Amino acid sequence: MWCDKVMKILLINPNISESVTALIEAEAKRAALETTQVFTDTVQTGVAYIETPAEAVVAAYAAFDLLAQCHTQYDGVVIAAFGDPGVAQAKEMLPIPVLGLTEAALASAFLLGGRFAIVGISERIGYWYQEMIANLGMTRRFVGYSGLGQAFADVGTVRDEARAVLLQMCLKRVEEGADSIILAGAPLAGLARDIAGDVPVPLIDGVGSAVRMLEAMVRGGFGPRKIGPMSPPPAKAHKNLSPSLAGLIGRGQG
Amino acid sequence: MWCDKVMKILLINPNISESVTALIEAEAKRAALETTQVFTDTVQTGVAYIETPAEAVVAAYAAFDLLAQCHTQYDGVVIAAFGDPGVAQAKEMLPIPVLGLTEAALASAFLLGGRFAIVGISERIGYWYQEMIANLGMTRRFVGYSGLGQAFADVGTVRDEARAVLLQMCLKRVEEGADSIILAGAPLAGLARDIAGDVPVPLIDGVGSAVRMLEAMVRGGFGPRKIGPMSPPPAKAHKNLSPSLAGLIGRGQG
Amino acid sequence: MWCDKVMKILLINPNISESVTALIEAEAKRAALETTQVFTDTVQTGVAYIETPAEAVVAAYAAFDLLAQCHTQYDGVVIAAFGDPGVAQAKEMLPIPVLGLTEAALASAFLLGGRFAIVGISERIGYWYQEMIANLGMTRRFVGYSGLGQAFADVGTVRDEARAVLLQMCLKRVEEGADSIILAGAPLAGLARDIAGDVPVPLIDGVGSAVRMLEAMVRGGFGPRKIGPMSPPPAKAHKNLSPSLAGLIGRGQG
Amino acid sequence: MWCDKVMKILLINPNISESVTALIEAEAKRAALETTQVFTDTVQTGVAYIETPAEAVVAAYAAFDLLAQCHTQYDGVVIAAFGDPGVAQAKEMLPIPVLGLTEAALASAFLLGGRFAIVGISERIGYWYQEMIANLGMTRRFVGYSGLGQAFADVGTVRDEARAVLLQMCLKRVEEGADSIILAGAPLAGLARDIAGDVPVPLIDGVGSAVRMLEAMVRGGFGPRKIGPMSPPPAKAHKNLSPSLAGLIGRGQG
Amino acid sequence: MWCDKVMKILLINPNISESVTALIEAEAKRAALETTQVFTDTVQTGVAYIETPAEAVVAAYAAFDLLAQCHTQYDGVVIAAFGDPGVAQAKEMLPIPVLGLTEAALASAFLLGGRFAIVGISERIGYWYQEMIANLGMTRRFVGYSGLGQAFADVGTVRDEARAVLLQMCLKRVEEGADSIILAGAPLAGLARDIAGDVPVPLIDGVGSAVRMLEAMVRGGFGPRKIGPMSPPPAKAHKNLSPSLAGLIGRGQG
Amino acid sequence: MWCDKVMKILLINPNISESVTALIEAEAKRAALETTQVFTDTVQTGVAYIETPAEAVVAAYAAFDLLAQCHTQYDGVVIAAFGDPGVAQAKEMLPIPVLGLTEAALASAFLLGGRFAIVGISERIGYWYQEMIANLGMTRRFVGYSGLGQAFADVGTVRDEARAVLLQMCLKRVEEGADSIILAGAPLAGLARDIAGDVPVPLIDGVGSAVRMLEAMVRGGFGPRKIGPMSPPPAKAHKNLSPSLAGLIGRGQG
Repeated sequence: MWCDKVMKILLINPNISESVTALIEAEAKRAALETTQVFTDTVQTGVAYIETPAEAVVAAYAAFDLLAQCHTQYDGVVIAAFGDPGVAQAKEMLPIPVLGLTEAALASAFLLGGRFAIVGISERIGYWYQEMIANLGMTRRFVGYSGLGQAFADVGTVRDEARAVLLQMCLKRVEEGADSIILAGAPLAGLARDIAGDVPVPLIDGVGSAVRMLEAMVRGGFGPRKIGPMSPPPAKAHKNLSPSLAGLIGRGQG
Repeated sequence: MWCDKVMKILLINPNISESVTALIEAEAKRAALETTQVFTDTVQTGVAYIETPAEAVVAAYAAFDLLAQCHTQYDGVVIAAFGDPGVAQAKEMLPIPVLGLTEAALASAFLLGGRFAIVGISERIGYWYQEMIANLGMTRRFVGYSGLGQAFADVGTVRDEARAVLLQMCLKRVEEGADSIILAGAPLAGLARDIAGDVPVPLIDGVGSAVRMLEAMVRGGFGPRKIGPMSPPPAKAHKNLSPSLAGLIGRGQG
Repeated sequence: MWCDKVMKILLINPNISESVTALIEAEAKRAALETTQVFTDTVQTGVAYIETPAEAVVAAYAAFDLLAQCHTQYDGVVIAAFGDPGVAQAKEMLPIPVLGLTEAALASAFLLGGRFAIVGISERIGYWYQEMIANLGMTRRFVGYSGLGQAFADVGTVRDEARAVLLQMCLKRVEEGADSIILAGAPLAGLARDIAGDVPVPLIDGVGSAVRMLEAMVRGGFGPRKIGPMSPPPAKAHKNLSPSLAGLIGRGQG
Repeated sequence: MWCDKVMKILLINPNISESVTALIEAEAKRAALETTQVFTDTVQTGVAYIETPAEAVVAAYAAFDLLAQCHTQYDGVVIAAFGDPGVAQAKEMLPIPVLGLTEAALASAFLLGGRFAIVGISERIGYWYQEMIANLGMTRRFVGYSGLGQAFADVGTVRDEARAVLLQMCLKRVEEGADSIILAGAPLAGLARDIAGDVPVPLIDGVGSAVRMLEAMVRGGFGPRKIGPMSPPPAKAHKNLSPSLAGLIGRGQG
Repeated sequence: MWCDKVMKILLINPNISESVTALIEAEAKRAALETTQVFTDTVQTGVAYIETPAEAVVAAYAAFDLLAQCHTQYDGVVIAAFGDPGVAQAKEMLPIPVLGLTEAALASAFLLGGRFAIVGISERIGYWYQEMIANLGMTRRFVGYSGLGQAFADVGTVRDEARAVLLQMCLKRVEEGADSIILAGAPLAGLARDIAGDVPVPLIDGVGSAVRMLEAMVRGGFGPRKIGPMSPPPAKAHKNLSPSLAGLIGRGQG
Repeated sequence: MWCDKVMKILLINPNISESVTALIEAEAKRAALETTQVFTDTVQTGVAYIETPAEAVVAAYAAFDLLAQCHTQYDGVVIAAFGDPGVAQAKEMLPIPVLGLTEAALASAFLLGGRFAIVGISERIGYWYQEMIANLGMTRRFVGYSGLGQAFADVGTVRDEARAVLLQMCLKRVEEGADSIILAGAPLAGLARDIAGDVPVPLIDGVGSAVRMLEAMVRGGFGPRKIGPMSPPPAKAHKNLSPSLAGLIGRGQG
C-alpha cells in the first residue's frame, strides 16, 4: 500500500501546443492532492491538436519516446489528450500506472451512474470517440457527442472563445437525457469548474479526473504485470529505435 | 473543487455480521488518505452474508433505511458488499457520492487495462456477478468467476481459513488470461495485500478500491443531479415508510 | 402436466394505491381462463406508484414480505407493476411460477415478432425501462419509450384522463416502425382493449399478458429448481426479518 | 378479448415424417386446454427431419404452401419444428398468430428466469441454434447446446432409443449452470414429461410450450398488423405460385 | 491456387423480372475481369421484386431449384438480390463459392472503413436489412437505411425514374455521417457509377461488389467444407423434391 | 470503373525482417492477377516481428513515414502484418485503397460463411486479436485463437519449423467447430497452400486474401472521401514531422 509519501506524477501533452500544456498544468495542480507533485511535458513532434486517429498514432509514438526517457522518475503518468493516444500500449510497456483522459473521464461517469454525453471542440472527432466508447463497453450509457462546428482561432483559447456555445451544447444533451457531461479535450481543461453552476448535472473534467484517478491507482499499490498480454513486450531484435524506447520494447520479462 | 479539508466517509455493511464490518473498517482505514475520517455501520436487518439477488433486495432496503437517517453527516458513502445492493438506487436518492464495492473494483480493473477475473467465497454467486458485469458493459474483459465450493465455518474468518484455495484460484485465472484479479466480497477485505507477492498480476481489493475511488469522486466536487432519472424521486404519497426514508423517497426536486 | 383443475393465481400490487389494485383485478379477471380463480392484494408499505429504481427496491421488499406470508395458497403469482420489482428475486425464493408485467409483455411482443415500443405514464421512467430491456436482451427490437410529460391528477384515473395523449403517442411510435405497442404500468390496465381499434398494430396489456402467460407457465407443470442460482437461497443466520420472510431466505435446500 | 369459445389450432409438421407428426399430435393434445381443438398436418415435400438451414428453406416453402391453403380454418398455427422454419415470415403473411417451437420454448425459458441449455438429436444443428438464439437476443442466458453424436435408427423412435444419453446430456448441462433445459426437436416431443423426475431443473418441451403460448396469444385477441414490416406483403406481379400462396404474397393491404 | 484460366460465373436473379436480369447482366459484365465469363439466369417462380422475408423464402426455394440443376457448370455463383435470399443456405449445399449482393456490398464497406448507409427502393425493406446487418455483426458501422416512399412504375426503370430522389437520400446520409453508401437492390445496379461524381463518399454497387468479390473468392481456391455445419447436408429420406435438389439435400458427405 | 490496365500495388512489411518481406512477396505474386505489378518494401525502424499493440504503434508510425513518401506511385497498398498496424489510420490519410492482412482475411472468412478460428505464431498475441475481432463486429463467428507456445528460432523460417504443430492446431479448431481457419501473421504466408490438403475446411492466407481483396477494391474505382471522419485530416500546425508525412497530416481538404 501507498505510504502517504509525496507522489510524483507526470502529465504529457502529446500534441505540440505549449499553451494547451499550460491549461493542463493549471487544472492538474488544482485537482491534485497537496502531497502530489505535478509535472508536465510536451512532445516535440506532431500536430497542434489531435483530431483524428492518424494524428493519434503520431502522438502516441512521440509520447512513447518521451516516456521511455523519463518514466523512471515518476510514480504515475497521464497522457493528457482525449482519444487516449498510446495509453493502452504504454500500460503494457511501463511498470507504473498510466492513464488517459478519456478512460479517466469514463470511469468518473461510470461511478456517477446513469448516462453521459461528451462535448468537445471538433465535430469530426465524434465518430472516433463513439468507436472508443463502444470498444470500452460504455455504449449503452452514451447519449452522444457534440462538437464545435465552427473553426476556432487558437486551441489555447477556444475554451474561452466558445464558452457560450459549449454551454448550450451541454444543456441540449441534458435535455436528451445525459446524467453527466464529459468536457472532452485537454484544451477544455478547467471549463467544467467555470460553467458547473449553469448545468443541472455533473460536469466531468478530463484532466481533473485523470489526476484524481491516477492518485487513486498509485495509492492502490498495484505492481507491474509479470505475465500475459499486459506485461512488457518480450525481447526481440530491433532497428533504429531510440535507446530508451529500445529498452522498453526490446527488454524481456526475465 | 474540494479544499483539502477533512473528508468524512461512511462504509455501511449491508449484512448483519459485525465481524465483517471489522474487516471492512480495518481495510478502509489502511486505504484512506490521512485527511479522511472513516466511519462504519452495520445494518440491523438481514442475513449473515449476501449470496443471492433476493438477499440483496433485503440488504438494499436495510441500507436505505440506515442511509436515510444518517447520510447528511457524511461527504460520501460506500455500501460495502459485492453485488452493490441498493447502490444504483441510492445514487438517485442521495445528494452525495455513493459507491459500491463491485463498481469500484471494476473501475480499478478498467483503468489497469486488459482482462480481469473475480475470485470470491461462494460458487452460487457467480451467475449474479456475471449478469452484473454484463449489465455494466464489462463482459468483454471478463475472464470468469471462481468461488469456494466447500462450506466455510465463519464469514468473518473465511479469508484466513481458505487462503490457500483462494490463492490457487487466482493463479488458475492468471493462466487463463486474467491481467488483474478482483477479490470479491467484503469478507475478503485485506486479502489482496496478503497474497499480492504470490500472484504475478495486480490484485484488486473491493474495499480499498471503493475508499480511494470515493475520495476521488468527493474531491471531484460533482454536485447533485437536479434533473433526469438520476435526480431525487419526485414527491408522492407514501405509507408506512420510516420518516427518514419517506423524506428521501417522498421529497420533491424543488 | 396440469390437470385442468381450478388454478388459483395472485396478483400483488406492489404500490399502495387501492384504486390501481382495482384496475388490475378487473383486467386480470377479464383475461383469465374460466377455470382460473383470480386474487389480488396490495402492499401496505411504499409509494403511490413506482417511478424509479429506488422506489422499486421499497416495493420489492414489501412484496417479498407479503408473498412470504401467503404464497403457499396459490399456484402462481404476478407482481403487478412494470419494472418488475423483486420479480427475478422472488423466482429464486418461491417454488411456484412468479411473473412480472414487463417480462410478460415482452414475451408477448417477442412472440408477435418485429419491433415494439412502450407507452407509459411517466417520462422519467424511460431510462429505467431501456436498461431493463437491454438487460433482458430485447434492445434490438425496441423502438423507444414514450411517457406522459404532464402531471396527472390521480394514478387511478390517469388512464382515462390522458387517453387522447396516450393514443397519439402510440400512433407516433407506429410511424417510427413499432410493430406492436406495450402499454406500460398497472394504471393503464385495460386501456389496450379500449383503443385497439384506433391503432393499426397490436396493443399489449401488461396485466392481461401476465395472467395468460402465468396460466401457461402453471399449466406447464415446471417444478421448482433444486440446484443452481435460481434455487432457494441456502440457509444462513438472519436478524429482524419477519418470520415468513426468514423462512424463505433462511431455509435450506434439503 | 377472447370469449372462452372453442379454439381451433393447427400444428404443421414441416418435415415429411408421419411418425413425428404423431408424436407432435399426442403431446399437443396433452398440453392443450380442454376447450382447444388440436389439428395436425404434414407437408408432402421435403426431408425426413430438418437438420440444416438449407433443409429449413425447403420446409418453410412447403409449410407456406400448406398454410396458404388452410389457414382460414384456424385461430392460430404452430410450425412444429425447431429452428422455426418460415415462422417469422408466416407471421408477416397470416392474419392469425403463428408460433414456432424454438421461440415458444425460449419464451418459457425467459419466463422461468436464469440460464438455459438445449439438448437435441443432431450435433450438427448446434451452430444453427446458436445463431438463432443470438439473433433473438438470448445469448447471455444460453449455456450451450448438446446433440446426439451417434446416428439413430429412426427419427420417430429416437426419443426412446436415446433416452439414457439424452438424460446424461441434460444432467451435464445442469452442472454447467443451466437453470432450465429445452428438449429440442419435434421428435423429442413428450420426453420432458418422462424424465422430469430425474433432472433437478425444469425441462421445457417445445410442442407443449408452443401450444400453451399459442393459446395465450390467441386469447390475447391481438389483431393483424395493418402497417409496417410485419403487415402482409404489398401486392405485386407473380408467376407460377400456387393460387393460395399467390393470394397471400400477392394480396395488398387494402 | 487459381491458374488465371477463364472463370465462369453465374448470377441468378431470384425474382421473375427479366428487365432486372438485364440490368444485373450489364453491370456484371462491366465489373468482371476480361478473363471472366458472365452468365445470368432468372427464376421462373416468384414475385416481381423481393421486398419482404416471406418473399425471400419463395425466392430462395426457386433459386435452390435452379442452382441444383446447373451449378456444376460454374466456378462460382451470385444470388443477385439484396437480402441474400438462400445465400447462407446455398453455401452449405454447393461445393463452389456462393455470394449474395448484401454480404458482398457489406464486405466492400467493411474494407473501405468507417460507417456506411444503405439507400434502396422500398421503405418497408428497411427493418429487414437492419436485422440482417445486426446478424452479420455490422450494426456499429450502420448509419441507417433510406428507401423510396413513393410507388414506382416499374422495377426495371425505377433506377432512372427516381434518380434525383435517390441522390438526395445519399447526400442526406452523408450529412449524417456515412463514409460510404450502398445502393441496395439489383434494380439499382449501375446507378453508383452514374451518380458517383455527385456524392463526396464512395458509392457501393451490389452487383459490381459481388462480381469482384466472387472472382477474389474463386481465385482463392478455397475447397469445399468436408466437415461441420457448412458442409453438405447429411443424406436422408426425402419426398417430392426435384431430382437435382434431392441430389443436393439428400446427398451424403462420403 | 477500372479499365483492365496494369495495376501497381505495394505491400509494406511494417517490421524490419527482410526474410519475412521475401515470404510476403512470394505469396503476393502467386496470388495476384497477371495484370497486377506487385511491389514490396520493408520499414527501417522497429522490431523483428509485431507481437503487441505497443510494437504495432511503432510499426504504424514507421509505415506512415514510408507510405507518405511513396504512395503516389501505387494504385493500392497493403500493410502486410496481422493486427493491421496503422491500417485504419492510413485509410484516412491516403487517397487510394489501403488494406490490412487481418481485415482482408476476416472479409474472406465472412464471405465463406460460418465460424472461423485463427492460428498464429505467438500465444501472447491472442488477446489483441480477440479485441480486434470484437471491435470489427466478428466475435459471434470467432471460435478462438491458437498460438505457438514454444519459442521459435527465426521468424523467417517458423512456418516450416513448426508446420506439424500448426497443422495440429488447425485440426483441433476444426473439431471445435471452425468452418474456416485464418493462418495469421505474415511469417506464415504461403502455409495455407501447403497444408490445405490435410485440413477439411478452407484455410485463409492473409497475404493472398489481401492481394485479391485489394485488387477487387482498386477495380471498384472507389474515389477518396471528401468529407467526414475518413477524409484526410484537416490542415494544422505541426513540428518535426518528415516533409512527406507533414504533407499528409497537414494537408487540407481543399
